[in-house]
Amino acid sequence: MKILVTGFDPFGSEKINPALEAVKKLPTQISGAKIITLEIPTVFNEVGPIIQQAIQTYQPDLVLNVGQAGGRFNITVEKVAINLADARIADNQGNQPLDEVIFDDGPTAYFTQLPVKAIVSALNENEIPAAVSYTAGTFVCNYVMYYVQHLISTRYPKIKGGFIHVPYIPAQVVTKPNQPAMNLEDIVKGLELAITTMVTYNGLEDIKTIGGTEH
Amino acid sequence: MKILVTGFDPFGSEKINPALEAVKKLPTQISGAKIITLEIPTVFNEVGPIIQQAIQTYQPDLVLNVGQAGGRFNITVEKVAINLADARIADNQGNQPLDEVIFDDGPTAYFTQLPVKAIVSALNENEIPAAVSYTAGTFVCNYVMYYVQHLISTRYPKIKGGFIHVPYIPAQVVTKPNQPAMNLEDIVKGLELAITTMVTYNGLEDIKTIGGTEH
Amino acid sequence: MKILVTGFDPFGSEKINPALEAVKKLPTQISGAKIITLEIPTVFNEVGPIIQQAIQTYQPDLVLNVGQAGGRFNITVEKVAINLADARIADNQGNQPLDEVIFDDGPTAYFTQLPVKAIVSALNENEIPAAVSYTAGTFVCNYVMYYVQHLISTRYPKIKGGFIHVPYIPAQVVTKPNQPAMNLEDIVKGLELAITTMVTYNGLEDIKTIGGTEH
Amino acid sequence: MKILVTGFDPFGSEKINPALEAVKKLPTQISGAKIITLEIPTVFNEVGPIIQQAIQTYQPDLVLNVGQAGGRFNITVEKVAINLADARIADNQGNQPLDEVIFDDGPTAYFTQLPVKAIVSALNENEIPAAVSYTAGTFVCNYVMYYVQHLISTRYPKIKGGFIHVPYIPAQVVTKPNQPAMNLEDIVKGLELAITTMVTYNGLEDIKTIGGTEH
Repeated sequence: MKILVTGFDPFGSEKINPALEAVKKLPTQISGAKIITLEIPTVFNEVGPIIQQAIQTYQPDLVLNVGQAGGRFNITVEKVAINLADARIADNQGNQPLDEVIFDDGPTAYFTQLPVKAIVSALNENEIPAAVSYTAGTFVCNYVMYYVQHLISTRYPKIKGGFIHVPYIPAQVVTKPNQPAMNLEDIVKGLELAITTMVTYNGLEDIKTIGGTEH
Repeated sequence: MKILVTGFDPFGSEKINPALEAVKKLPTQISGAKIITLEIPTVFNEVGPIIQQAIQTYQPDLVLNVGQAGGRFNITVEKVAINLADARIADNQGNQPLDEVIFDDGPTAYFTQLPVKAIVSALNENEIPAAVSYTAGTFVCNYVMYYVQHLISTRYPKIKGGFIHVPYIPAQVVTKPNQPAMNLEDIVKGLELAITTMVTYNGLEDIKTIGGTEH
Repeated sequence: MKILVTGFDPFGSEKINPALEAVKKLPTQISGAKIITLEIPTVFNEVGPIIQQAIQTYQPDLVLNVGQAGGRFNITVEKVAINLADARIADNQGNQPLDEVIFDDGPTAYFTQLPVKAIVSALNENEIPAAVSYTAGTFVCNYVMYYVQHLISTRYPKIKGGFIHVPYIPAQVVTKPNQPAMNLEDIVKGLELAITTMVTYNGLEDIKTIGGTEH
Repeated sequence: MKILVTGFDPFGSEKINPALEAVKKLPTQISGAKIITLEIPTVFNEVGPIIQQAIQTYQPDLVLNVGQAGGRFNITVEKVAINLADARIADNQGNQPLDEVIFDDGPTAYFTQLPVKAIVSALNENEIPAAVSYTAGTFVCNYVMYYVQHLISTRYPKIKGGFIHVPYIPAQVVTKPNQPAMNLEDIVKGLELAITTMVTYNGLEDIKTIGGTEH
């Protein structure tokens, strides 16, 4: 099994992106799966073709995109990507799409193929705070998650795709009062556990266990 | 113009539902639109047919469902409903669906027909904290939002549908340390402003203005 | 019984101070007590003599200072004032004391004479979220609380003094994502209930009930 | 220089106390100072004599008590201890003092002898989120901080005393949604940096730098 794991470069006012830092620290092999890591730019339009090129080059079985969600307390595994690009801040090339569709002919949303509950459960059992998330936002994170799903839907039906958001690391919140953070090593450990779970559940259904939300 | 506005009965450990309390206080006419209010049960399966029956009876031009999102700071206007029922707690009849689809033949998600940014903008200009939300959760709130959208998509193409989540009111957080709340009168005022905006924007496109998220 | 209630003018980047707005809306009589309200400047050094002059002029039985604590969820009744002026931002005259004592000959701290638990209990029973606080900060709020206590200790032993912090009101948080707020009318109601409790408990001990913190 | 560092045993519903876990991991020597660590019980009344006995036995130059403050985002260095025991929950022997003084003949409060700003500054420079705190609560943490200060004031004038609160570690928040946590290794690193700063500033004044609060 081959897994392509991407991390975004820093964006907004941040000098580092914990997603990228964590992805760089992944080993080249996890639970027997070959891990290919790739830095991708936080740029609408650019990021899609780059991912597609990487899929062509590496022929992965699974594409896992990892991004930063500053302000979240936990590692969050995204369930759904929506066909909407709507940016509060400019991306790294100054693009700021407002209320645009990502693909004109795409559906409103895609669910991930990842076993999101099994992943969250594995992390929590190993003392890494994690949760399922039902929104990947409307910035480049959701964009790339949707883009990969659209590629899967239209061209690469055998590939699985998914997105994991990681919190700030402590270095980023020293100057931000009362913002949650997670240690980089814990994020790396969380990603490794998540990938192990993806390998284990390859071909299997997700667990049911506890439900999602109460509103 | 006729608008059907629903509010859920209390659920979980709550004795009141601020959504229902606010809906009950709406006037029968807002900006020239006739307002029909309806209490609906926080029960998967039951709530759909009840809404459909009300649509048949009242022939509204717009269906606005209002629900409680305890823990949120603002009135949030939902952009998207997903085809997923996944309950952390039992509903008011003891149902607790886990990872179920709402309609087997439904798409992964629907976007609302409401001008979500114009609504948020109108509320904020009037000093009611509000924001667009990209997840209505996976409990009965998302269920009814999706259900209405599916009815619109399959049977009532001229109707518009949307969902607004409201925070706890102060009475609910007295025993919950550090939980945000919003005064009931402010919630009512927010709903009235939201409905006024829906009437004003009937047939018009939403504003673009500032974008959604930055992750 | 005569009660002097002060409210600070706006400071920092705020255009209004909810404490002042609420104090202005107090009736001239509460539970038989005469209420004298006074706007005071958010200025170290200036505020002390102004309060002392007002005490001389009005001869109050109780001095209640009210201030804004942006970011707090509840109305908080302060238990203690400390002999420390240490300002993160400049006051309204540009003063920014760092790590200074307020009175060279003053003790490290004073406890309020107010029945803080009875006040919190009265507010919560009336559905106004409230809590006891054990820090009034180190800016002008704590300064004036300490100053009044020092006056009481050294010159006016029959007067009681206390401080209540109020949250932002909704108008202030519209542009601040995820900040708690409380409706101004609820703040006014809370202050009235607090003053009623002060009148009721005049000469009585505070209730014990539930304790303060768990760390 | 000899430093006695204490950590409390777990209390409330927690199975571990991150303060104790971190203290156990401290080296026996930091920046030339000898470190003596001691587990102390989260029990009013018991903890004071135990500390006093340890002071007699080890003759430390500095006593640093470390405790858990669940819900805080940062390592917080306490500035002040107050003469108040007021417990929201029972301690580990079932004691739950309500609104009691700690020492009848004690002053309202003591300031720590620690250079709190220099410590916070050192941690933040090393990417450990930290802040000065102006309340150690009213449970056993504040109790022991006050107790040590009272011992210093009445019997051991050459000793310095201080208290540091540490957040939950990730293992504790896995089942608590949206609660901040800090990695244990980061807490240990933070304590080591704090102690290094105490050694460096032995005999020196604290830095002034940025002020405390803005309310």
